[in-house]
Amino acid sequence: MSVERVLPTGDAHDLLDLVRDLIGKEVAPRAAADESAGRFPREVFTTLGRAGLLGLPYAEEYGGAAQPYEVYLQVIEELAAGWLAVGLGLSVHTLSCFPVAAYGTAEQREALLPEMLGGDLLGAYCLSEPQSGSDAAALTTRAVADADGYTVDGVKAWITHGGVADFYSLMARTSGTGGRGISCFHVPSSTAGLSFGEPERKMGMKASPTAQVRFDGVRLPPGALLGAEGEGFRIAMAALDGGRLGIAACAVGVAQAALDAATTYAKERHQFGSRIVDFQGIGFMLADMATQVAAARALYLDAARLRDAGRPYGTRAAMAKLFATDMCMKVAVDAVQVLGGYGYVEDFPVERYMREAKVLQIVEGTNQVQRLVISRALAK
Amino acid sequence: MSVERVLPTGDAHDLLDLVRDLIGKEVAPRAAADESAGRFPREVFTTLGRAGLLGLPYAEEYGGAAQPYEVYLQVIEELAAGWLAVGLGLSVHTLSCFPVAAYGTAEQREALLPEMLGGDLLGAYCLSEPQSGSDAAALTTRAVADADGYTVDGVKAWITHGGVADFYSLMARTSGTGGRGISCFHVPSSTAGLSFGEPERKMGMKASPTAQVRFDGVRLPPGALLGAEGEGFRIAMAALDGGRLGIAACAVGVAQAALDAATTYAKERHQFGSRIVDFQGIGFMLADMATQVAAARALYLDAARLRDAGRPYGTRAAMAKLFATDMCMKVAVDAVQVLGGYGYVEDFPVERYMREAKVLQIVEGTNQVQRLVISRALAK
Amino acid sequence: MSVERVLPTGDAHDLLDLVRDLIGKEVAPRAAADESAGRFPREVFTTLGRAGLLGLPYAEEYGGAAQPYEVYLQVIEELAAGWLAVGLGLSVHTLSCFPVAAYGTAEQREALLPEMLGGDLLGAYCLSEPQSGSDAAALTTRAVADADGYTVDGVKAWITHGGVADFYSLMARTSGTGGRGISCFHVPSSTAGLSFGEPERKMGMKASPTAQVRFDGVRLPPGALLGAEGEGFRIAMAALDGGRLGIAACAVGVAQAALDAATTYAKERHQFGSRIVDFQGIGFMLADMATQVAAARALYLDAARLRDAGRPYGTRAAMAKLFATDMCMKVAVDAVQVLGGYGYVEDFPVERYMREAKVLQIVEGTNQVQRLVISRALAK
Amino acid sequence: MSVERVLPTGDAHDLLDLVRDLIGKEVAPRAAADESAGRFPREVFTTLGRAGLLGLPYAEEYGGAAQPYEVYLQVIEELAAGWLAVGLGLSVHTLSCFPVAAYGTAEQREALLPEMLGGDLLGAYCLSEPQSGSDAAALTTRAVADADGYTVDGVKAWITHGGVADFYSLMARTSGTGGRGISCFHVPSSTAGLSFGEPERKMGMKASPTAQVRFDGVRLPPGALLGAEGEGFRIAMAALDGGRLGIAACAVGVAQAALDAATTYAKERHQFGSRIVDFQGIGFMLADMATQVAAARALYLDAARLRDAGRPYGTRAAMAKLFATDMCMKVAVDAVQVLGGYGYVEDFPVERYMREAKVLQIVEGTNQVQRLVISRALAK
Repeated sequence: MSVERVLPTGDAHDLLDLVRDLIGKEVAPRAAADESAGRFPREVFTTLGRAGLLGLPYAEEYGGAAQPYEVYLQVIEELAAGWLAVGLGLSVHTLSCFPVAAYGTAEQREALLPEMLGGDLLGAYCLSEPQSGSDAAALTTRAVADADGYTVDGVKAWITHGGVADFYSLMARTSGTGGRGISCFHVPSSTAGLSFGEPERKMGMKASPTAQVRFDGVRLPPGALLGAEGEGFRIAMAALDGGRLGIAACAVGVAQAALDAATTYAKERHQFGSRIVDFQGIGFMLADMATQVAAARALYLDAARLRDAGRPYGTRAAMAKLFATDMCMKVAVDAVQVLGGYGYVEDFPVERYMREAKVLQIVEGTNQVQRLVISRALAK
Repeated sequence: MSVERVLPTGDAHDLLDLVRDLIGKEVAPRAAADESAGRFPREVFTTLGRAGLLGLPYAEEYGGAAQPYEVYLQVIEELAAGWLAVGLGLSVHTLSCFPVAAYGTAEQREALLPEMLGGDLLGAYCLSEPQSGSDAAALTTRAVADADGYTVDGVKAWITHGGVADFYSLMARTSGTGGRGISCFHVPSSTAGLSFGEPERKMGMKASPTAQVRFDGVRLPPGALLGAEGEGFRIAMAALDGGRLGIAACAVGVAQAALDAATTYAKERHQFGSRIVDFQGIGFMLADMATQVAAARALYLDAARLRDAGRPYGTRAAMAKLFATDMCMKVAVDAVQVLGGYGYVEDFPVERYMREAKVLQIVEGTNQVQRLVISRALAK
Repeated sequence: MSVERVLPTGDAHDLLDLVRDLIGKEVAPRAAADESAGRFPREVFTTLGRAGLLGLPYAEEYGGAAQPYEVYLQVIEELAAGWLAVGLGLSVHTLSCFPVAAYGTAEQREALLPEMLGGDLLGAYCLSEPQSGSDAAALTTRAVADADGYTVDGVKAWITHGGVADFYSLMARTSGTGGRGISCFHVPSSTAGLSFGEPERKMGMKASPTAQVRFDGVRLPPGALLGAEGEGFRIAMAALDGGRLGIAACAVGVAQAALDAATTYAKERHQFGSRIVDFQGIGFMLADMATQVAAARALYLDAARLRDAGRPYGTRAAMAKLFATDMCMKVAVDAVQVLGGYGYVEDFPVERYMREAKVLQIVEGTNQVQRLVISRALAK
Repeated sequence: MSVERVLPTGDAHDLLDLVRDLIGKEVAPRAAADESAGRFPREVFTTLGRAGLLGLPYAEEYGGAAQPYEVYLQVIEELAAGWLAVGLGLSVHTLSCFPVAAYGTAEQREALLPEMLGGDLLGAYCLSEPQSGSDAAALTTRAVADADGYTVDGVKAWITHGGVADFYSLMARTSGTGGRGISCFHVPSSTAGLSFGEPERKMGMKASPTAQVRFDGVRLPPGALLGAEGEGFRIAMAALDGGRLGIAACAVGVAQAALDAATTYAKERHQFGSRIVDFQGIGFMLADMATQVAAARALYLDAARLRDAGRPYGTRAAMAKLFATDMCMKVAVDAVQVLGGYGYVEDFPVERYMREAKVLQIVEGTNQVQRLVISRALAK
């Protein structure tokens, strides 16, 4: 079903049309098979890159499309509705480009961004560790400085695109404890000493590898440092503000897809002599689902417009991530319910949506972390 | 606490500032006492009229302010946060002006609107009857045409401003059964044969009278008819689309007020040696409340922007009404909880917010009616 | 509607029949008027006492009925369904008798219990203070020992029956800080130095006075001490375990009454040509309400049977209080919704149920305190 | 964690101990591997049979254990906590034996029950069809009578144990339309003309085959008829009343397992310098989960005691099924959340619990059907 969108420009309409076309042809048709096989669709990202979709919110001088977040996020939403591994993958890639784009020197930006934004390279974002998840500032991966650069040792966990990315935006400790001792680095995948764990055996998003990334005496040149030493945690948090909006958009996409599948089924399935959509028991459930989806979309767009207006938006982004992903989980569970037994089997995509939905409540700050962020803002 | 709003114009910012100032001086200070005494604040509406707030979304040529719904609704929200009887009263007044403004002839508009929009007159909207609530099309109040106009007989129920309004926008049956036989009329309060029931003894909103409006051989001239004969139900439904957005905005206002009161209390109250806001048990509850409020606001603004863009918005308005009022009820209940015993007594306004919240799930279409509207749109 | 109860004995059936008869004749008929007038129905408690209902779970040798909690609580439930002020009043009275019954010496029991259990005396329970609610162990009311007894100074807050009770079970500090310095005392209402605040202006339960109880140089004889010095907090917590079950039973009673009123209305009200109970939008809501009520009843009975079997039941009691009162709040809000406008006015009792429901989430440990109790048990 | 159970007899305690021992040794250790491989654990059912667990609620004279439902269901719960495929499998088997046990002639009972209850045979229950799920009375599989018995043609869908069961309890149409034309038959798996679809590719419970069962000119002797012709729908509904309690018990088992896993993790995992169970954000979530589990268990036991007392229990059973399975879904989703990333991968069992939970909201009457059953009882 097509969503009534209010977009800021005609260009944005054209962009969304392009994206929907590309999804229909290149993304959605292979989702089920690749998910079932656990096959990472690297070439889809190449296609996205060629279509100019890998650098949407970044500056045109480096190959970006200079789109407002309001538009960029609706692209993410549509992609995620087609296939979460792709929508979320694009969000992670965009997040991974952020440190260079926002904190890199002019030289770093010129050297790195064009390939990052053009689709030849795919990014990953290395913050979490086995023992530091919600408490990100407690990370222990260490980057020890010497005359020629840094030596990095440690293990990063739960890394989307771990093992398939071309570059890793790494948060590592250069001094002390806590957030202030953390710095941010750009690490090409070809760097010696980098290795990867087996992909995690996940409940969903099986086509998108999640793996440990291990740094064993990895040597980085001085120019790998993004921003100043000690600025890494601040960069990481700023990156996450945007990343959370990406996840919110993904959640709305998956939920919309689930709602659409449930609605379509409910209009076709007959019981007791009527379409089941005409029973209030089903119709009202769909109405609640649709309302929740619309509210979540409105909320992430609201946060995006704050960002686009250059105003503080971190708390609103945390709200959008929290609301949209909790909503998505509930809507996906209910969508399966509408289909009954048919919802529980792979013949329909809704069981996949339900498995996918769950990860969104966890990534880029669990929803408990979002509540922490929001409650701290309220408590000030 | 001041809400981070994205407003379309600088004028809108000024307008909101004016409104907040007026609320602080003229509205909020008397809310508790008037609610307790069940005293209708007629003079507040006069003040609003003089400030140009009684015709915000209507054309400037008739005394309106030609504000987009996006702005008008945020005024409603702020007023409702200060005192629901006023915010909702303004929404009902605006709704009551709609038939003349949208369906009146040029003559009717010129004759009636200036006083309606200027604050000298206050409106009421007469659709519901004792036996037809959700099934509005089944109404039985009859307007029998003859050579000189119409004779109206019947009883309207649950009429906000019943007995205190200066004019009544009336839906009455001119023929047949069902929606097609309904017509819309403008009825000044001075019309002979009009009488009013005792104000209902409501759980909340006691300052805003709700009463039956009885038509006993009421004679109306031909010019009282708004739109064509038989067009009344369509007018009523179109009016309600806008009216539902007004209720959604009211709900966000009440919920924001409840959230603010709870947050303030939680930052001052200490137990176990800490501010209670610093316990996740309270802090996370406030975070969820704040998130829900933000989502509801984003959703009604989203629907408003559709309307402002001239696009179909009825389903989105029903979603906004449903979501915002269910949210408001929950947030108000939780706000009382944050204050504990203090929340349950009249010393703090939150018990009032909770009693007020409930009516919003019922008026201008119960939330079951909203679900019906939404599910029918999905089922198409 | 009569509830399908599984009762342990035929006597229990007879008891419940007696209670229902008494409610129908003496309790329910005056609830609305007394609530509206804020009139405490002292004589109803005298009637309950004469019927042997004021000492149900206590030993027969002191005038009790030696009923298991499983039965006692169902009596509370039925009373609360008829009128919460009475059901909750009886629960509070029973709680107030607990320190004497469970920790008093044989002499204290003989001297005090017969009148307490027989209905000539009504009790109140003094634990909370203005600055110590959830953190009860931080109470500051002081009982200073000397040769002849104790001198008590301090203020107790939120005391049900404050100002109308005949005796007060008081927790006061005899030493140090924290729970270990607290002792329990029996204080007749006639004791010099005892005074009472104005009744709180509550949202509901207006017939049941809640007030501050002030101790200003109150002299207590040594025999007023119940249990050992320093044992008061333990007594208070043990009393609350039972008291929480009483509140759970009250919540089920109020919710059942709300469900019954909503069901009755839904079977009588017609819209769109059918009884509204036959629309799934209403019917399914009622089904969910009935299911929640049944689950809450089963849970408090489950906890009661643990207690009756002499097994630890505090965590289960906290669960019952938490679940039943959250359930009651939701069911009452939904019951108003089923009646629509009629639910929002005093012509029907459901608006009263909704106002009453809220207090149950707060008293005898807010539901946040219950979650604390439960989470600590899990965390062990 | 061991649950505080109130059991009616010492024998019941011994039985539960036996069951827990058997689960620990024979059931739980192989659950993960068999689920992952989609391998049906036929031999586990043989083991259950030898331990006397396949006929728990049936008469001792036919090899049953004559246990009350109160006890039988707690066995189901424990099994489901160890492995849903086994707990639900036992519930389905018990359901499949019901028509013979309750409606069979003495001869049929003697001939069939001993093997059914002893574990040599495993049952399946054939009611649903591709086009008749919730509307079971619309089934179209036809059993045409002639002089020598019946000829059956049609397709049954969503049959648990389809293809691996030894006998099928079949509902087929012997006349007319609607429920009154349906009859019940006993069909051994060796019967000619019986064939099976490929096992459905389900989201969870992959070790328990669910498949279509096809009847193609299947010949049944007159003695295959259970009860009278036309009595089948009544038998089916009576069987489902009990079967729904089995599903409720399964749901409580899965939820308890999820809660236990989450609690264990939360006590071991540290973030921000503390066990995460000690943060209210996690601790309160666990408290809510534990409360919901306890309420669901209390509710199914309550319904079981009604049944055990020979009283009507169908509505209460529908409530138990509805409440317990909705609860299980929510608790499982939250359990994954407590573990964060670790909850989303196969290294821990909680992602499996979440996938399993969903099917319980669907089987033996979707939760929409349960609401229909309950609302009809209320609407009488």
